[in-house]
Amino acid sequence: MELAGNMGRCFVTGAAGFIGSHLVEYLLAGGNAVTGYDNLSSGKKVWLESAATNRQFQFVEADLLDEARLTGAMEGHDVVFHLGANTDIPLGNQDPRIDFENCIKGTFNVLQAMRTVNTRRILFASSSTVYGEHPIRPTPETSGPLLPITHYGAGKLAGEGLVSSFCDLYGMRGWVYRFGNVVGPRMGHGVIFDFIRKLRQDPMALEILGDGNQEKNYFLVEDCIEGILHASRYAGEASCQVFNLGTDSTVRVTEVANIVESEMGLHGVVHHFTGGDRGWPGDVPIVSYDMHKMESLGWRARASSAEAVRIATRRLLSSAQPVG
Amino acid sequence: MELAGNMGRCFVTGAAGFIGSHLVEYLLAGGNAVTGYDNLSSGKKVWLESAATNRQFQFVEADLLDEARLTGAMEGHDVVFHLGANTDIPLGNQDPRIDFENCIKGTFNVLQAMRTVNTRRILFASSSTVYGEHPIRPTPETSGPLLPITHYGAGKLAGEGLVSSFCDLYGMRGWVYRFGNVVGPRMGHGVIFDFIRKLRQDPMALEILGDGNQEKNYFLVEDCIEGILHASRYAGEASCQVFNLGTDSTVRVTEVANIVESEMGLHGVVHHFTGGDRGWPGDVPIVSYDMHKMESLGWRARASSAEAVRIATRRLLSSAQPVG
Repeated sequence: MELAGNMGRCFVTGAAGFIGSHLVEYLLAGGNAVTGYDNLSSGKKVWLESAATNRQFQFVEADLLDEARLTGAMEGHDVVFHLGANTDIPLGNQDPRIDFENCIKGTFNVLQAMRTVNTRRILFASSSTVYGEHPIRPTPETSGPLLPITHYGAGKLAGEGLVSSFCDLYGMRGWVYRFGNVVGPRMGHGVIFDFIRKLRQDPMALEILGDGNQEKNYFLVEDCIEGILHASRYAGEASCQVFNLGTDSTVRVTEVANIVESEMGLHGVVHHFTGGDRGWPGDVPIVSYDMHKMESLGWRARASSAEAVRIATRRLLSSAQPVG
Repeated sequence: MELAGNMGRCFVTGAAGFIGSHLVEYLLAGGNAVTGYDNLSSGKKVWLESAATNRQFQFVEADLLDEARLTGAMEGHDVVFHLGANTDIPLGNQDPRIDFENCIKGTFNVLQAMRTVNTRRILFASSSTVYGEHPIRPTPETSGPLLPITHYGAGKLAGEGLVSSFCDLYGMRGWVYRFGNVVGPRMGHGVIFDFIRKLRQDPMALEILGDGNQEKNYFLVEDCIEGILHASRYAGEASCQVFNLGTDSTVRVTEVANIVESEMGLHGVVHHFTGGDRGWPGDVPIVSYDMHKMESLGWRARASSAEAVRIATRRLLSSAQPVG
């Protein structure tokens, strides 16, 4: 927990979400005072049960679009971990206003509130989706142009630009993390979650979206949080910096299915493929990260993609969390 | 005018602005029907006087933030030239809402309107400001990460991402142009304009913002428009593409002063420098473009940066446009 020590008074948006609730626990364990801010649209208050027993923690149930509440709640904090966003990418593709409001306007409001109350540091959860289907793989942070194929990705790219301009103009500092697929307990989306749900309904057959050759990087939520804190400590003094956060290993979706089935003790499951090179419109078939930048700072995810999928599956299966 | 032929029914936002009003004239000369949309916040109706005599032209005075007017006006058009934006970058840095509304929300509204009325092509005026102070110079389109240092630059970057996601998800096509410094008659900002204004007030001395070593690329508005049309015709079938639009030559700001003074017939003007490496917060001291992509398509600005500055100065001086 050394990494999480002495962060100052922490403000976490999306605090009741999958990654946010784990981050809150880390920050509290490091001895920091933490305010969690969440509208509970996808986060769950039960995930903050352990945090709520800590006197250093307070929770504000409110929306990023409520500028007055947001600004008032942020007063007196030293650093913002901005994780709050829409989490349902396909839904956002059907109604562009969802990501416009939750990702773009939400991030703008966070930055405006920081300026108003003089909070100077922001750690921002961006995403691999900013890359779209980038021709260079593995993809380093220096790649361009960024042509996202989802509104979520466009929203995260907009957030990156705003973090950068606010930092440069108003003497703030920003750390932007382009997350790969983060997995672990409390996740409410994604292929592992879907496979467990489907296999509990039918342990003989599994429908796999796409042709099964989609290939992504996966990493554990604790690796994600340690990476965030590590870069904020060791990346030097530039006003705004961008980091790929994930692993340089990948797993194909059929291999994910095999791991989930083996952890569930299932054999001979028949795979049906819906076909096409991707699971859904906006799905990027192959996401492969160049991780040299984080490695040059001395950080590496402990678990490879395949290990992360196996560990996350095991934990999801053994947790009380309802899946499906 | 061959380049401007057969574009379909054209919808131009920011039509009464510096670049927009020239573009409207080109498109009309190419035989296209054109609707100009502008709130006249910085554009001037007098710049559309010649266009207004053409029966193929209609003008709608309305704001990009008025979604109903925008959607209604766009009905029946084949292609959108989206140039409407805040044009006062330093002002935007003082109040971030200006670029949030005029650049980000405005572009979002244009794309939503296109989706609603089934207009499938967008040519989007982005900017060199998306690059911030990029370490790679000359800077190609493939450079990253993009860390803008103005809200205007952040707003243009957000617009790029949204154009990309809308194009990919809804079968639209996008051409994104990162403009260098466009110069010519009707421009209402920028160093040439400022120098003429100051030298008319005091022909003996000129205050130059920064240390005079700032170095930018400048290109003429007619080169800009031909570049836009050229790339949209010859850049192939990708759903969304990005182009640097400018020249690979640069001019230092002291050289701009010398050119303006010589065109005004002034000699022995004493230069006073305000000092520092930049003119104002958010000014990028050196902007140098890699133009290989546009050159590979067979386009090159006819005038170099120095020639563009001289020609634009001459035209501004001989025009009826009030300067200062």
